[in-house]
Amino acid sequence: MSNVSAQTYFEVQTFYAQQMRLLDRLDVEGYAATFTEDGVTDHAHRGEKVEGRAALIAGAKHALPRYKGVAVRHWNDHYLIDEVDENTLNVTYCSLVTRTTADGKVDFEPTFAIEDVLVRVDGRLYTRSRTIHRDLPVAI
Amino acid sequence: MSNVSAQTYFEVQTFYAQQMRLLDRLDVEGYAATFTEDGVTDHAHRGEKVEGRAALIAGAKHALPRYKGVAVRHWNDHYLIDEVDENTLNVTYCSLVTRTTADGKVDFEPTFAIEDVLVRVDGRLYTRSRTIHRDLPVAI
Amino acid sequence: MSNVSAQTYFEVQTFYAQQMRLLDRLDVEGYAATFTEDGVTDHAHRGEKVEGRAALIAGAKHALPRYKGVAVRHWNDHYLIDEVDENTLNVTYCSLVTRTTADGKVDFEPTFAIEDVLVRVDGRLYTRSRTIHRDLPVAI
Repeated sequence: MSNVSAQTYFEVQTFYAQQMRLLDRLDVEGYAATFTEDGVTDHAHRGEKVEGRAALIAGAKHALPRYKGVAVRHWNDHYLIDEVDENTLNVTYCSLVTRTTADGKVDFEPTFAIEDVLVRVDGRLYTRSRTIHRDLPVAI
Repeated sequence: MSNVSAQTYFEVQTFYAQQMRLLDRLDVEGYAATFTEDGVTDHAHRGEKVEGRAALIAGAKHALPRYKGVAVRHWNDHYLIDEVDENTLNVTYCSLVTRTTADGKVDFEPTFAIEDVLVRVDGRLYTRSRTIHRDLPVAI
Repeated sequence: MSNVSAQTYFEVQTFYAQQMRLLDRLDVEGYAATFTEDGVTDHAHRGEKVEGRAALIAGAKHALPRYKGVAVRHWNDHYLIDEVDENTLNVTYCSLVTRTTADGKVDFEPTFAIEDVLVRVDGRLYTRSRTIHRDLPVAI
């Protein structure tokens, strides 16, 4: 079981709804502003770590051409929230990413599992760190 | 941040769970009954506006052949809820639509962003207006 | 409307977030442990019913080769929760299943509608029964 309240669950859902819209609108500055000033994004699957908002903005701008000609959407599910302290939350979830062309063809990036640390500053949530793992087949 | 309570968030989630089932079951009358009598659906991306339940039913029946031979499902995410007044909610979300054939092949409609106005009448939510935007590539 | 509280809604979301991770990690024993000892899974669409944790584990192990070389993810939506009594919940939802290869190609299983009965034992939810219906085209 989780140790957080329904109100916190809803607060977290709303945070991601806002953050994912900024991301999918390719609003790099708006997206970076949902991170703390020293926020870290770690693309663990490609060993690439970006530290601080300025580096996040530079990295995201560099990556923008990947999304030329497609509408991107992140579809998240299965949030688990763990309250570390009153204003720190560990949140994990998985993400499916669609890329839709102007004529409506949808294709997919690989699926991902994400581990975030969110902090609440002046009543507002921010991402302090994000670690992104690309889903790989389980050895069976 | 959103100004609504966790209870309202849950009420809204439940409303969409019920409405989307009626839609995906192609229960045109049941779906129309989740709109107010004067409810409006605006397919903004094709400039097509349908006003009132009767017109909604007629339009939906006309569109049914599009779904012949496929099971449709709408997968929604990233709800943002804004309380306009005690019984009026602005809700926005995005939607991924699958079409699955009898032999299990899944394909996709383009992704969409939706803006709804919900009203609560006698303790029950209804859609008063729905505006549907097809996702298009962002200019970069 | 649903008769459950936002807190129960959140408890249920958290239950599925945990259970689906075990399932997608192909952790057969861990997944079976989220069912009651006498838990039943009924694949209604192929007339196959599995009763009790031991049979569930055996059946799941038998099915594992289907997931060789792919990362599986279940994406659920549209939960409806009905409180039968204080510790019994009927929950229905739909599920989209992705299979992602090591080089990142995503494909899809047919979509499903699921009916679960959850029971709360010592403050913790378990699945007592699960009935899985494959989505089929609606006759129109």
